[in-house]
Amino acid sequence: MLREFQELATDNTSGATELVHRLLALCENCAMGYHFDELRQGFALLETSQISMPSLHAVLHILKGEFLPKLLEGEETAEAIVYLSSLQNILEESGEAISRYFSSKFDKPTRVVTISRSLTVLSALNTLAEKGKLRHLYVCESRPMMEGVRTIRDCCQHSINSTLIVDSALMEVLPNTDIAIVGADSVSADGFLLNKTGTFPLGICCKELGIPLYVLCDSLKFSPQLKENIRVEESPESEILERKTADTFCIHNCYFEWMPVDYVTAFITERGEFPPDQLTRLAGEDAAENSSP
Amino acid sequence: MLREFQELATDNTSGATELVHRLLALCENCAMGYHFDELRQGFALLETSQISMPSLHAVLHILKGEFLPKLLEGEETAEAIVYLSSLQNILEESGEAISRYFSSKFDKPTRVVTISRSLTVLSALNTLAEKGKLRHLYVCESRPMMEGVRTIRDCCQHSINSTLIVDSALMEVLPNTDIAIVGADSVSADGFLLNKTGTFPLGICCKELGIPLYVLCDSLKFSPQLKENIRVEESPESEILERKTADTFCIHNCYFEWMPVDYVTAFITERGEFPPDQLTRLAGEDAAENSSP
Repeated sequence: MLREFQELATDNTSGATELVHRLLALCENCAMGYHFDELRQGFALLETSQISMPSLHAVLHILKGEFLPKLLEGEETAEAIVYLSSLQNILEESGEAISRYFSSKFDKPTRVVTISRSLTVLSALNTLAEKGKLRHLYVCESRPMMEGVRTIRDCCQHSINSTLIVDSALMEVLPNTDIAIVGADSVSADGFLLNKTGTFPLGICCKELGIPLYVLCDSLKFSPQLKENIRVEESPESEILERKTADTFCIHNCYFEWMPVDYVTAFITERGEFPPDQLTRLAGEDAAENSSP
Repeated sequence: MLREFQELATDNTSGATELVHRLLALCENCAMGYHFDELRQGFALLETSQISMPSLHAVLHILKGEFLPKLLEGEETAEAIVYLSSLQNILEESGEAISRYFSSKFDKPTRVVTISRSLTVLSALNTLAEKGKLRHLYVCESRPMMEGVRTIRDCCQHSINSTLIVDSALMEVLPNTDIAIVGADSVSADGFLLNKTGTFPLGICCKELGIPLYVLCDSLKFSPQLKENIRVEESPESEILERKTADTFCIHNCYFEWMPVDYVTAFITERGEFPPDQLTRLAGEDAAENSSP
């Protein structure tokens, strides 16, 4: 079992949602087999790894607060497993529910801009396109890892009219778009959205032009933790630039950045649409309480 | 002589300032040798080429309005050559004058962010550093051509403390900077700055955070033309992304973008500092009149 935690900790090709799925399955197996020590060791291992997956850490934090105590206090594991199922349901069903909420907001063909890559955003875009309400999609390439290129390639498989731009060309397309949408890696309890670097300039430009910015994410992304307690680390410099020997400057490479939620028009979750001043209704502990029986 | 115009028209490695220098020298040779036909043919050639050099086209426009008529109306060429000299003087002496004006604005170590590459900005940064008033420089890499990397490499030769970032990471460094500075490719008579793509998001983010944005450029950049008459064309898609055969999306690649001058705190030129509402004093014809004897 610990080996599977180790695999999870070192997997750097799977997306956040897949990793969370596997984490929940591992928790279920541990609970059913009474492997509590391995579970604790596995959690400890994950806490110091997967630094580029803050959404995995957010779920880990929820599990430590809501799932682990149920097991360790010697209660029936049944309750803990029901709790896990509720999280798995959120993960599995949220994409469809969010897409439904999102696409029902628009009654005519809409021009959309997005950055990076979010499975939730992709699902919502496909639904919008299927309903004939996606007029054009602009995608920022998202240096350094170019997740935007994967996003737009997936979209063109679904025959979505779309244009790829460099990240700095935001203002060349924003005046011709109706809305901006992004996913979320985490939302801190003190009101900050953690998402791909580039989200904050997008938020500011949207505000300047009066263009709505929607965040599409499941309620598991709403953390009970404060921003300062959620770790966001830097990635290798070499992803930005191959160094020459004479180079003496620094290189800053961080995949994620924080933006105050005030720049967000609304969060669209599987539980509905929430303006940024009503997010306390979605914070981690609250969500867990509501979804456990 | 026409061959030299052809070389100028197809030179895609020299910077804008060097090309303008060579254009002025060619004009001088044509005027002194009475090669007026070749001059006209050369101008026509340049008008349809060097599309990625709007600042060259701006000077070409000034020359067509102020220099060519002097020759063709059969006046003494002496007056035309004195006029050319005045433009050459602006080019040669403006860098130093702008650096002097700029560095005198700051009395303590200042943190600066810039994008792309401008010789005028580089000169100003070096002067600021020599005076011990450059605390830290942040440089956006400037996709797709990565001119920011050349900028920061030049700066680290002058021992300037500096950090390279991807273009989307603007808001990770802007809260820690005191000012933003950019060059200019052109300023239209109707109040728009033409500069490297990424300038507009920078301008909006600076406004949001209350950080001053200075444009450093010589007065030749102030065009008597309207924005709609200044051509800005797209560059090859392949500079952004190597296409796969299945790709059906568009790719937008434009090096330059327009920003209303209201986002600029001040233009610093060889003639002093001008807030954006006083730019008529710098428009092309006016500048030419003032500098001709």
